[in-house]
Amino acid sequence: MARVVQKFGGSSVADAESVKRVAKRIATTKRAGHEVVVVVSAMGDTTDDLLDLATQVTDDAPKREMDILLTAGERISMSLLAMALTAEGVSARSYTGQQAGLVTDINHGRASIVKLAPERILRSIEADQVAIVAGFQGVNENNDVTTLGRGGSDTTAVALAAALKADVCEIYSDVDGLFSADPRIVPKAKKIPRISFEETLELASHGAKILHLRAVEFARRYDVPLHVRSSFSTLEGTLVTSESQKGTDMEDPIISGIAHDRSQSKITLVDVPDIPGSAARLFGVVAAADANIDMIVQNVSTQNTGATDISFTLPTDQVAPTRRALEAARDELGYAELRADEEVGLLSLVGAGMRSNPGVSARLFSALWEAGINIEMISTSEIRISVVTRIEDLDTAVRAVHTAFELDAEDSEAVVYGGTGR
Amino acid sequence: MARVVQKFGGSSVADAESVKRVAKRIATTKRAGHEVVVVVSAMGDTTDDLLDLATQVTDDAPKREMDILLTAGERISMSLLAMALTAEGVSARSYTGQQAGLVTDINHGRASIVKLAPERILRSIEADQVAIVAGFQGVNENNDVTTLGRGGSDTTAVALAAALKADVCEIYSDVDGLFSADPRIVPKAKKIPRISFEETLELASHGAKILHLRAVEFARRYDVPLHVRSSFSTLEGTLVTSESQKGTDMEDPIISGIAHDRSQSKITLVDVPDIPGSAARLFGVVAAADANIDMIVQNVSTQNTGATDISFTLPTDQVAPTRRALEAARDELGYAELRADEEVGLLSLVGAGMRSNPGVSARLFSALWEAGINIEMISTSEIRISVVTRIEDLDTAVRAVHTAFELDAEDSEAVVYGGTGR
Repeated sequence: MARVVQKFGGSSVADAESVKRVAKRIATTKRAGHEVVVVVSAMGDTTDDLLDLATQVTDDAPKREMDILLTAGERISMSLLAMALTAEGVSARSYTGQQAGLVTDINHGRASIVKLAPERILRSIEADQVAIVAGFQGVNENNDVTTLGRGGSDTTAVALAAALKADVCEIYSDVDGLFSADPRIVPKAKKIPRISFEETLELASHGAKILHLRAVEFARRYDVPLHVRSSFSTLEGTLVTSESQKGTDMEDPIISGIAHDRSQSKITLVDVPDIPGSAARLFGVVAAADANIDMIVQNVSTQNTGATDISFTLPTDQVAPTRRALEAARDELGYAELRADEEVGLLSLVGAGMRSNPGVSARLFSALWEAGINIEMISTSEIRISVVTRIEDLDTAVRAVHTAFELDAEDSEAVVYGGTGR
Repeated sequence: MARVVQKFGGSSVADAESVKRVAKRIATTKRAGHEVVVVVSAMGDTTDDLLDLATQVTDDAPKREMDILLTAGERISMSLLAMALTAEGVSARSYTGQQAGLVTDINHGRASIVKLAPERILRSIEADQVAIVAGFQGVNENNDVTTLGRGGSDTTAVALAAALKADVCEIYSDVDGLFSADPRIVPKAKKIPRISFEETLELASHGAKILHLRAVEFARRYDVPLHVRSSFSTLEGTLVTSESQKGTDMEDPIISGIAHDRSQSKITLVDVPDIPGSAARLFGVVAAADANIDMIVQNVSTQNTGATDISFTLPTDQVAPTRRALEAARDELGYAELRADEEVGLLSLVGAGMRSNPGVSARLFSALWEAGINIEMISTSEIRISVVTRIEDLDTAVRAVHTAFELDAEDSEAVVYGGTGR
């Protein structure tokens, strides 16, 4: 007997039929003798529909009220799922974030969990019930409803799994697991059977959409094994664990997967004075504009101008405010010109095996060179190499690198069941 | 400056545009210097849509889960209304039943209020905010969400008005107030300017749909003046108060209004033994079947059979279980035959002036006789006379009686703005 937390995303509970299908699946696990706690997102497009309603009323909704509005979504899905389980003959109770004891800070719209005291969930487990918990939501110290922001339901599931000391947290969506690349770009992408938290974090923070960064960070911190799988098939998915657990089973492959990201832009400041403190002032301004910088490259000053060029990448939707902040500080920073380029793509190669394989960079650059793709920026971590290319070259680049690292499967392995992704 | 509780029904907040319209109206009251607390129902068809979803999942939903599902509706309307008020420049906060301190017993689906401790609402008033409270819902001692059943939002509004010692509780819908008869049947129905709680109770419990019985009972118990009016016009509506308050302003008219009810049926038991205890046993069986009896008529035994006929009215949807219970007890009760008749209509004439006007019954019977309508049963209270007719005669009966008691207005006064009623 195991204690399992199962999280179902919106595409898995898109309508009444899906809710019944998911209920049957949960019932099967429960009848096999396991303790099951379920975390559920809002049904299908509910959240978008609610956002749309808010937009019709005002374009400047107070965040507290937006949180109340959006949390109606999970209320609907969780109660329907409890009804469907009951109809399956399995005793079930649904709980809001507040009822589940999920206490957050007061940051409406992107609250952080400060305490999780799931007494009622434990009582449900003891009473042989399936507890169904609303994802994405909590309550703050003022007894106001909060939401955890993007990926919030995954975070709820992992936090609950940690608090309940669950054996595994199963994250269900409409794909079979993590793949060596996005199957829409690389049809021969392979399912990754096991991967470490660290690699998953690198993939998730560089464009892979399957798991949310915050949930993976939570899982790593509390060492909660994740099983990423599809609610539309019974195939084993991808097991995400600590490196030590992963290592006992198998040799690390050199490369686990390739992530790509089209949502980044590049800002280049030309002729920044090459003097001490220059970069610190520059990135102080950028940080004050709340920009999330990923890569930074500073050219070596090749001429005797005493000036250098500095480029960095950031999410495209942060270009406008960052540009305004930098232009306002132009006199202080002393640069000659600011260039913003939204037509860039980011490719990241991730693998714990890189640590012991020095030839990875060379193989990557050579694969891109052979495919005729120019590299504009490079950055590396211990287990990742990222390059910036023209956005129109990105798909070709991903396919070329996937083949060069012998990741291609014999046959196409990926099936997207639901259609919309998560 | 007054303290006002305003309740808006689903037809007043049917879509985003209506929510904005209602917000403007609330803002006007607030800007006039009043303290405003708002109670809101779910938007338009939301509740029906949610019920429909539940039916798609199961036809036997646990009541606890049904309550969680249905309360999603007010969450949506209340947060949107708070957003719209904020956009109008009026500070507003929305509160669930739990946040508003509305504690109920544990009867899911039709809970009763056991405590109302609106501390957060009072704090909002002190902070010059409009507090918006979800109608229809509360929380029980287990921290589970409950609903108050039909008319629950009216009850929430009246209970809040009582707890906050409000000067008036305004009940907004899509009609201009209480009318002397249903304007769809009697186009010349008059708006009633003032009426007592007792008369309103008699009208509401005999088919008038405008106010829910339970809310009126609550208002009477705590002496909360109700102002029933339309959210689509600025006309004064109907003021519902205690008789003493009403009396200071004006003479009682003999008749305040006429209610009609098509939802009742008549059950007749033929040849019930006319012996002591017979009726007690009979209605013991009926009560055990949870039937809500209104009128009872026992014929005088005209022959020397030692048997009598007993007829009673009850809601049509309770006929089947009541018939089963009576048939199961047939040997014990000893009746010869059971006849159920769903083709009956109930007309009730209500007016506090009846007490001092002995000729009312005669005038009623004479009006019906002149209109060629047969009376099948009669019952009276201190301020009401009800008669049962054939259902196809009911509309004619209502019009004839309305004219006979000189209730007809010069012109048609009633406008239904929204279309759906409440």
